[in-house]
Amino acid sequence: MGGLNARLAVGLVHYPVVNKFNEVVTSSVTTIDVHDIARLCRTFGVPEFYVITPLSAQRRLVQRIMKHWIEGFGGEYNPDRREALSIVKVVDTIDDMMENLRFEKDDAALIVSSAHDSDSAVSYEAARASLKKTGRAALLFGTAHGLDGSVLLKADIRLKPVKGAGEYNHLPVRCAASIILSGLLKQDTEK
Amino acid sequence: MGGLNARLAVGLVHYPVVNKFNEVVTSSVTTIDVHDIARLCRTFGVPEFYVITPLSAQRRLVQRIMKHWIEGFGGEYNPDRREALSIVKVVDTIDDMMENLRFEKDDAALIVSSAHDSDSAVSYEAARASLKKTGRAALLFGTAHGLDGSVLLKADIRLKPVKGAGEYNHLPVRCAASIILSGLLKQDTEK
Repeated sequence: MGGLNARLAVGLVHYPVVNKFNEVVTSSVTTIDVHDIARLCRTFGVPEFYVITPLSAQRRLVQRIMKHWIEGFGGEYNPDRREALSIVKVVDTIDDMMENLRFEKDDAALIVSSAHDSDSAVSYEAARASLKKTGRAALLFGTAHGLDGSVLLKADIRLKPVKGAGEYNHLPVRCAASIILSGLLKQDTEK
Repeated sequence: MGGLNARLAVGLVHYPVVNKFNEVVTSSVTTIDVHDIARLCRTFGVPEFYVITPLSAQRRLVQRIMKHWIEGFGGEYNPDRREALSIVKVVDTIDDMMENLRFEKDDAALIVSSAHDSDSAVSYEAARASLKKTGRAALLFGTAHGLDGSVLLKADIRLKPVKGAGEYNHLPVRCAASIILSGLLKQDTEK
């Protein structure tokens, strides 16, 4: 089955996420997140990165960026960027992503991250141990102020939040994703 | 003296850095790096973040962004952003940063990060051990294709590169900084 990284797919969720008032919203795609998280996944050997948004205009935007960097001048000018963006997939919903990762009758495990702690949240080590025998796994990151509670509740594994030095807890999703992927996949990459 | 985080200052270097042809260049300030690394430092309790560029127009740009978020409408709209950008300092050169960190006769330790490995590069644990007795320390990140060799050679401590799953090694500086700070400061924050 290979390392966890090869079985993992990362999802960047634009719906359902919450805003600063904890209301469920659809956030806009931030193109820098697509670039950064693609490069991050490529670095850690994660083979697929799903950008998830129900807005078709936003899905077209991501596809246009990918086309520029994969087939257009961007790919010629910067082949490393092409290599990263080649792993991006654009889908409507989290369910679409999970359906893509299903293998025959086996659902993929759903892993979520949140800036808020919870009694059910586990360490990277515990998450890795639970994932030892599963097939594929989806690791979701929420944009805006994070994944809506409905997604957190459905998860098989909820990761402990990134722990800073105090109460300040406002990392950009691309930075949080960097810290979490590097922590979760340490043992796949540092051997 | 407190944890290492409280003694650390992060520097984002725009000169001297190298381009893809390994030529020494001055890179442009990317405003998202300023925002992201400020939020990252604030999260991990690093009290100062220096943006280093010899170009006065670029220094003015950073100061204008800071003014918007600290004194202007931005700070009112998003106080978390204000809190992060309040730790930013803008200087001409690495020497200026080091001079600021000097305490009486004690120079600050100079820590560098690079995507390229070296025999002299050390783990986060070894870096922490060497820094146990020093006063302040500067941790530099290079923009573009990384810090020029002249800076790497001057360093007291060179950190091991972020280790991915293979040869692909093109993380944005904001993502690399996230992984490195979180690794280096783990023991200050996870207790």
